[in-house]
Amino acid sequence: MGPLQIKEILQTSPENQSVTVKGWVRTKRESKNAIFIALNDGSTIHNIQAVAEPGQFSAELLSTVTTGSCLKITGQLVESQGSGQLVEVKIEDILVYGTADPETFPLQPKKHSLEFLREIAHLRPRTNTFSAILRIRHALAFAVHQYFNDGGFFYLHTPVITASDAEGAGEMFRVTTLDLNKLPRTEEGAINFKEDFFGREANLTVSGQLEGELGAMALSKIYTFGPTFRAENSNTTRHLAEFWMIEPEMAFFELEDNMDLAEDFVKKVITYALINCKDDLNFLQNRLAEEEKNKPQNERSIPLLEKLSFVVDNPFERLTYTEAIEILLKSKPHKEKKFQYPVGWGIDLSSEHERYLVEKHFKKPVILTNYPKEIKSFYMKLDEDGKTVRAMDVLFPGIGEIIGGSQREEDYEKLLGRVKEVGIDPENLWWYLETRKFGTAPHSGFGLGFERLVLFVTGMSNIRDVIPFPRYPKSAEF
Amino acid sequence: MGPLQIKEILQTSPENQSVTVKGWVRTKRESKNAIFIALNDGSTIHNIQAVAEPGQFSAELLSTVTTGSCLKITGQLVESQGSGQLVEVKIEDILVYGTADPETFPLQPKKHSLEFLREIAHLRPRTNTFSAILRIRHALAFAVHQYFNDGGFFYLHTPVITASDAEGAGEMFRVTTLDLNKLPRTEEGAINFKEDFFGREANLTVSGQLEGELGAMALSKIYTFGPTFRAENSNTTRHLAEFWMIEPEMAFFELEDNMDLAEDFVKKVITYALINCKDDLNFLQNRLAEEEKNKPQNERSIPLLEKLSFVVDNPFERLTYTEAIEILLKSKPHKEKKFQYPVGWGIDLSSEHERYLVEKHFKKPVILTNYPKEIKSFYMKLDEDGKTVRAMDVLFPGIGEIIGGSQREEDYEKLLGRVKEVGIDPENLWWYLETRKFGTAPHSGFGLGFERLVLFVTGMSNIRDVIPFPRYPKSAEF
Repeated sequence: MGPLQIKEILQTSPENQSVTVKGWVRTKRESKNAIFIALNDGSTIHNIQAVAEPGQFSAELLSTVTTGSCLKITGQLVESQGSGQLVEVKIEDILVYGTADPETFPLQPKKHSLEFLREIAHLRPRTNTFSAILRIRHALAFAVHQYFNDGGFFYLHTPVITASDAEGAGEMFRVTTLDLNKLPRTEEGAINFKEDFFGREANLTVSGQLEGELGAMALSKIYTFGPTFRAENSNTTRHLAEFWMIEPEMAFFELEDNMDLAEDFVKKVITYALINCKDDLNFLQNRLAEEEKNKPQNERSIPLLEKLSFVVDNPFERLTYTEAIEILLKSKPHKEKKFQYPVGWGIDLSSEHERYLVEKHFKKPVILTNYPKEIKSFYMKLDEDGKTVRAMDVLFPGIGEIIGGSQREEDYEKLLGRVKEVGIDPENLWWYLETRKFGTAPHSGFGLGFERLVLFVTGMSNIRDVIPFPRYPKSAEF
Repeated sequence: MGPLQIKEILQTSPENQSVTVKGWVRTKRESKNAIFIALNDGSTIHNIQAVAEPGQFSAELLSTVTTGSCLKITGQLVESQGSGQLVEVKIEDILVYGTADPETFPLQPKKHSLEFLREIAHLRPRTNTFSAILRIRHALAFAVHQYFNDGGFFYLHTPVITASDAEGAGEMFRVTTLDLNKLPRTEEGAINFKEDFFGREANLTVSGQLEGELGAMALSKIYTFGPTFRAENSNTTRHLAEFWMIEPEMAFFELEDNMDLAEDFVKKVITYALINCKDDLNFLQNRLAEEEKNKPQNERSIPLLEKLSFVVDNPFERLTYTEAIEILLKSKPHKEKKFQYPVGWGIDLSSEHERYLVEKHFKKPVILTNYPKEIKSFYMKLDEDGKTVRAMDVLFPGIGEIIGGSQREEDYEKLLGRVKEVGIDPENLWWYLETRKFGTAPHSGFGLGFERLVLFVTGMSNIRDVIPFPRYPKSAEF
């Protein structure tokens, strides 16, 4: 549908056929014998080279062919004379759709900092780095849908606006249509949310899990893939106020099945990118090598493709939280008091601990299970010992926790007890509790922050660079 | 991954092999010679029949096997003795995962009204009607991703939280973390939104189009598929406060290409459902026939599958708004003053006019183009006459507008003029305007409300019944 794209044209065998190429000028180079225009339309990291003869076009026209301008070029597709590409276009005609004044167009062919590019997020998809990231992001998203569809899961659109902070997963954004300058009051003087749009207080969801469970208790296997929100004032390279989560929930899955699914899922999705995004991954691998070329050898990252293949090819290490604590207690950094946070059974593992396990001790992805109930959510199934829950966290090198999940508590009384224990009003969760009252069953699920996955696969280091228009404290531009 | 599902088991050839079946009891029937349990796990509309001998299990156990209870049944897969199914399970063992007290479980095997089921949206996916709808919804969503992926489009996640009411498409929900009981004030006494999370006023998006255009002006072909919001106090069968939109945007597409894409897209996606959701569509077709059996013949709907095939098999009628007005002016209902709203060039067509064109005059889907600029959005490309714009609306029988789109104004000065004309501060859209300053190009796009599509394909009549947890005025339950 629509005109041929540069990706397709570059794969066509050149037989002097007529072609039309549309795209944005990346560079223009003039030599004595020819004028070379590198054109890119975002369909691929590769430009197509279009060649004109000196004098073929007026100086006036050529002066508008500058980096960033948009052209329609018609000509002949011929075997390329230069190296690096198989085909090029012998230009017959140029139509300039839109110019890009070199004095003001910010994306000149030179290196721009990622910080600068964040300020022009409306234009950064026109750079090699960001177009590669966005194509990989697309491929990963498609792989997610394909994986679950093939596996008999149903995509469930859980609500974004919710009246329950069910998970207690974090600070929430309020959603309201009340006029803040004329807030309605009850007789007691409190804000009268009965007059708000939904007749009650409403927020942006922090997770679709609880509603996802409702789906799984009817359709057996569902997944969500939608935006979730955290109103935390975190200005870090790992947090966004708005990000996309993938949350499968499965009836009849126990913790072991859940781990099998999580490992298979993440491996298949990364494999899809390795197969379908070779050129973009190569580009990002080289970019990273270039960035790190001044670092000493031992501080440089593993090459991107090697890192991804390693994750795909090796079984994840599975152990319990208790076993992990033992390893940490015996570790060199613990004995030498190099960990910033103390180690001991009951602690919430911090990033340094997770990284030690993944990067130093096992040197591969790790799945930790059976965490102390005190540091995990109320909906996780209690182990027989009454101390731990059937939680599982998948830890990745460089990223830390990429997946968090658990077998869910299916026993009504135990769940109700935990709800009360953590201070949630059971009234607010009547619908969630009822799934344990009517036809309950063992079930499990997990959540994967999509941007964490994209971060890992692209080798980027700031999460604001793997989503088109990042939302974070004091920033909602574009 | 995970245990075999009933859908798969029903397609297995019976060779007396051992099987394990997990699911929820739809019905239990006891006869002199056998006990029949119909089990469903949501993977298909069909139940599997499991058969036990009288006396094989204790009365105590059997008393907990009631509609809604969840079982694990092990047994032999054998050829079915009864009609209507090829295989059944000869029960060897029953494990009751969860009971469903017949006194309190609301989904007893009888007809429930859709209104009642809306009140128990946490359980309604366990009914035939809603599980069929949710499976079809999944299939349509997957078909959307597959269609665009195959066509070289990139899935772009545009932001949900936005600081611009760019499109002016409707009332918006405010997003805030300010404490409403202690609103910060500026020196002048106004609410100080600089202290809000994003340092400014923020809302839930009404459309990802403008950000989508930014993507298209770099990657050529993108699409969005995400939640959008309207804070309109509309309690109708066609409006939701939160709904999912699909918005492709394409560089180098003119209005004609846009129409071709829209028609091809909607046909392919419906075809996917016709191929992959036969059983569910059949069920819904019969459901509709059952609902309408007391109506006179001429008031009944076209059978669902016939309606869908008709849309897929016939070219949509394309005509201009001006031509449509002429047809309406010559129409019988106009001459007999049967239209509620007057007809004349310049009017915003109302539902009765659209339905006349689609259902009475052309008897097929219609694409109307070139609407008066006054009744369309500022970003639509002005026609040469200066009066109309390159808009297109795709109108479907029963649904009305299912797709709205246009060629976008690519000329900086004309766009700026329109922005000012409609009273938007150009400062708020600096990033949008800049795409016309730097390498502008002809481009087009459209939006399709996903729930409208699901409504059409399922033949349901209330949009609240085609989304798992609907959001509308005074309702944000679950």
